[in-house]
Amino acid sequence: MKKQWIIPLVLLFCCIGCAAHPPVNTVTQTSTIDVLLAGGYDGDMTCGELLGHGDFGIGTFDRLDGEMIVLDGQVFQVRADGRVYRPPAGLKTPFAAVSRFEADKSVGLSNLDYPGLQQVLDREISDPHLFYAIRIAGRFSKMHTRSVPPQEKPYPPLAEVAATQPEFEMEDVSGTIVGYRCPAYVKGINVPGYHLHFISDDRKQGGHILGFELDEGRAEIDRCNKFVLIMPESAEDRHQLDLSRDRSDELEKVEK
Amino acid sequence: MKKQWIIPLVLLFCCIGCAAHPPVNTVTQTSTIDVLLAGGYDGDMTCGELLGHGDFGIGTFDRLDGEMIVLDGQVFQVRADGRVYRPPAGLKTPFAAVSRFEADKSVGLSNLDYPGLQQVLDREISDPHLFYAIRIAGRFSKMHTRSVPPQEKPYPPLAEVAATQPEFEMEDVSGTIVGYRCPAYVKGINVPGYHLHFISDDRKQGGHILGFELDEGRAEIDRCNKFVLIMPESAEDRHQLDLSRDRSDELEKVEK
Repeated sequence: MKKQWIIPLVLLFCCIGCAAHPPVNTVTQTSTIDVLLAGGYDGDMTCGELLGHGDFGIGTFDRLDGEMIVLDGQVFQVRADGRVYRPPAGLKTPFAAVSRFEADKSVGLSNLDYPGLQQVLDREISDPHLFYAIRIAGRFSKMHTRSVPPQEKPYPPLAEVAATQPEFEMEDVSGTIVGYRCPAYVKGINVPGYHLHFISDDRKQGGHILGFELDEGRAEIDRCNKFVLIMPESAEDRHQLDLSRDRSDELEKVEK
Repeated sequence: MKKQWIIPLVLLFCCIGCAAHPPVNTVTQTSTIDVLLAGGYDGDMTCGELLGHGDFGIGTFDRLDGEMIVLDGQVFQVRADGRVYRPPAGLKTPFAAVSRFEADKSVGLSNLDYPGLQQVLDREISDPHLFYAIRIAGRFSKMHTRSVPPQEKPYPPLAEVAATQPEFEMEDVSGTIVGYRCPAYVKGINVPGYHLHFISDDRKQGGHILGFELDEGRAEIDRCNKFVLIMPESAEDRHQLDLSRDRSDELEKVEK
């Protein structure tokens, strides 16, 4: 190669590198939880675009077709049959949050249920006004999850869908918990507190976590001080949704 | 110049251009309104850094030392004496929101007060769930503003400071209104609805707007669908602030 091409090529790769690498310590989210609670299930951002903002995260899919887990740059879809699918890069999401996972600290865990885990993590978290990405590899004697089935228009509110959600009970399963702890001030935008999904090591089971018994595991915590909200431009129906009222009670029902 | 330097130089300028240019349609904010309401007045982001995120916006300064107006890439500080200062690039802000202003639409205005303006703008706004930067050049028969004096530690809550705020009445003044309309879901993070500051054309008067009589003017509206929240990492005192309760009533008192 000719010598005069070295510098331009280095610069070009720097440019591409900068553009391709999502920023650290930044949670990027498309749309809001209140749009989802109100029945705004039309996807806008593709899974491919989403991966441009992070390699780790959670969400759902177009028409509410299952629970999303993003882990190590791969998107997994736990559908209402309880099975795990690999969605095409063009499949859209109406609501998801992702980040580029780089653990700041790590803590060993044993014999914990979901409330117990939250207590342990709360003690590890220095500032409740920041965002924390949580990744836990572990062995679980019990794991209780749910998913949601795809919806038809006119979309019912999420609380109605969740009332008949399929739930899954796993036993003696190894896998990874993926999710976030968000500050209280995200109310209406995301889920205040913990919001965690699960995927098994064999990539066959998973879902939105309702409860578990963890035997042994390790939590990695990534403190994030930046939050990017991207509101879909194309959401024609959004102005018809009632986003004025407090949906905290509905969120409580849907999450638990 | 030697020919082989042309391509590397073009690439270098592209890189610098990308890095230096804040993104369009993006409101970038440091810290939250609830931190400010709770008395978190220690500045974190410098005015210089802030300008890296936008050329237009509003905020306040370290120790609550006045009202900030960012217009055409220049930062103005309306202090408690009612006069306008040009702060040094190193002065920090505890709370500010900025964007790169590029008007999407423009509307002529005449004979309006503050509530009347809000009605006109609300009709121009297509989606209340997005953010809108508002810039209005006009002639005002009356303009009523306030500023706030710098505080000493332990900082009192903002509602206490605002109870004795200096207010300013201008007559027959030409100037620019600078600010945002934020969606309802930013409650706790920013000010839902309109939050507008003013600076006179002669750059001698201004402040946080409490009311006005506009004779004639033109509003430019920049629709923004991205919101970036940067929480200061260094806010040692933040975890001592009570950010759990709803401060909507305090905000109402402080804003009006």
